[in-house]
Amino acid sequence: MGRVTVRRPVLRVDASGRTRVPDALAAEEPLELRVGGRPLAVTMRTPGQDVELAHGFLLTEGVVADRGDVALARYCDGVDDEGRNTYNVLDIALAPGVAPPDPGVERNFYTTSSCGVCGKAALDAVRLRTRHSPADDPAAVPVSVLTGLPDALRAGQKVFAATGGLHAAGLFTATGEALAVREDVGRHNAVDKVLGWALLRDLVPLAGTVLMVSGRASFELVQKAAMAGVPVLAAVSAPSSLAVELAEEQGITLIGFLRGSSMNVYTRPERVA
Amino acid sequence: MGRVTVRRPVLRVDASGRTRVPDALAAEEPLELRVGGRPLAVTMRTPGQDVELAHGFLLTEGVVADRGDVALARYCDGVDDEGRNTYNVLDIALAPGVAPPDPGVERNFYTTSSCGVCGKAALDAVRLRTRHSPADDPAAVPVSVLTGLPDALRAGQKVFAATGGLHAAGLFTATGEALAVREDVGRHNAVDKVLGWALLRDLVPLAGTVLMVSGRASFELVQKAAMAGVPVLAAVSAPSSLAVELAEEQGITLIGFLRGSSMNVYTRPERVA
Repeated sequence: MGRVTVRRPVLRVDASGRTRVPDALAAEEPLELRVGGRPLAVTMRTPGQDVELAHGFLLTEGVVADRGDVALARYCDGVDDEGRNTYNVLDIALAPGVAPPDPGVERNFYTTSSCGVCGKAALDAVRLRTRHSPADDPAAVPVSVLTGLPDALRAGQKVFAATGGLHAAGLFTATGEALAVREDVGRHNAVDKVLGWALLRDLVPLAGTVLMVSGRASFELVQKAAMAGVPVLAAVSAPSSLAVELAEEQGITLIGFLRGSSMNVYTRPERVA
Repeated sequence: MGRVTVRRPVLRVDASGRTRVPDALAAEEPLELRVGGRPLAVTMRTPGQDVELAHGFLLTEGVVADRGDVALARYCDGVDDEGRNTYNVLDIALAPGVAPPDPGVERNFYTTSSCGVCGKAALDAVRLRTRHSPADDPAAVPVSVLTGLPDALRAGQKVFAATGGLHAAGLFTATGEALAVREDVGRHNAVDKVLGWALLRDLVPLAGTVLMVSGRASFELVQKAAMAGVPVLAAVSAPSSLAVELAEEQGITLIGFLRGSSMNVYTRPERVA
């Protein structure tokens, strides 16, 4: 696509004064996902790997569970004011028998009737049921493999090197082999791209793998790992309380503060060999 | 609320071996916002300052424009299985004459009919119109004030110090006085809390102020600044391409990589004095 970075002049201000210099920015554009011709969601993403992103999004939102559930993914052929295809709208056709997402039950905009189950209803609304539980995955990942992952992730971050402005997610085997590394302005999108990559290769459920993310581990990232059957989720930075709770509930090994030769293991430490 | 951190044992793995130690996690819980009794959105947030968060969310989503537009904000009095109020559902009543948000036009889940305006429709769907344009704000912020903001922000980050796991947003005057600093597991929530704080004090539009954020500057954060009339947005890390585009369009001074004695000024540099 050639749009992962955008060049632009910038005024650099430092101790030596002001200089006008060229700068590379991480590209951010909206992607509209349509399912069966009907708009489902708009996400702000870094262009590129949109088909992977769409597959990962549908997988981690519980709409599809394997590659065969998607019949077709293609860019809408509409054009902008200047007659160019923006490649910002992706049409998905689900396979026969796969239920389309219910637009009335969107997770950020759903309807409940009862007030008596307040907090529980709110939590249930954001919680999904996985068809690929990693709870019984016997994966064992050596400490030396885990401590090598941050450098391996960074090595795969080609756009970050140019812009300093992207999140990354990487999928690794238990012996540390990099399967896929993806970057995006959005944390969730980087993870969806990696998981969509795996879905397109029939690798889901991702038994025996480690998902490594560049930032923090939130509830939603743990949920995405659970939806794809990933047994080990590692983050450079801190997890939230709900991320730890969900990891425990789903039987995922959650690792945080993975830096240098140390890490914190929050749940299921038996997988750290 | 007493729930901004959660204590939990963790397995610490480092060169000296494995130790079980206590750890403090940044709390993350869902907050359901209801407007006029109808669920509007669920956001994963760090509990505390929920009323500010709700005001900031409604302001930056274009539902309200000043304090008087909200008649009442209170926690739903429902209880969980154990008979406790979870304080995770907030009821908002809008003032007479204020139009409720249209649930059929949610920005993450909207409907368009035409395919011919693909990318433009997607972008328009996430773009809001501000009633508090900062374009003509004559604010002038000295370089020395700007370079002091990262430390001032960090000084206000009480929970980050304990957990290492929170984003922060701070609102400052053009002379560097901290008006409000808020933390949250979500970047957008930290900004909404700060802007909601301002709305509750009748300070919106926030003429002459600087909004400082701990991470990157995305399209959505620039949009929130525009909705609140903030003329200067500064980030510790990189902006995205669309963040710069929107800042230019809205007449906002956008500063990135604000670290040590240097910074990059992407738009409207005349406000950097």
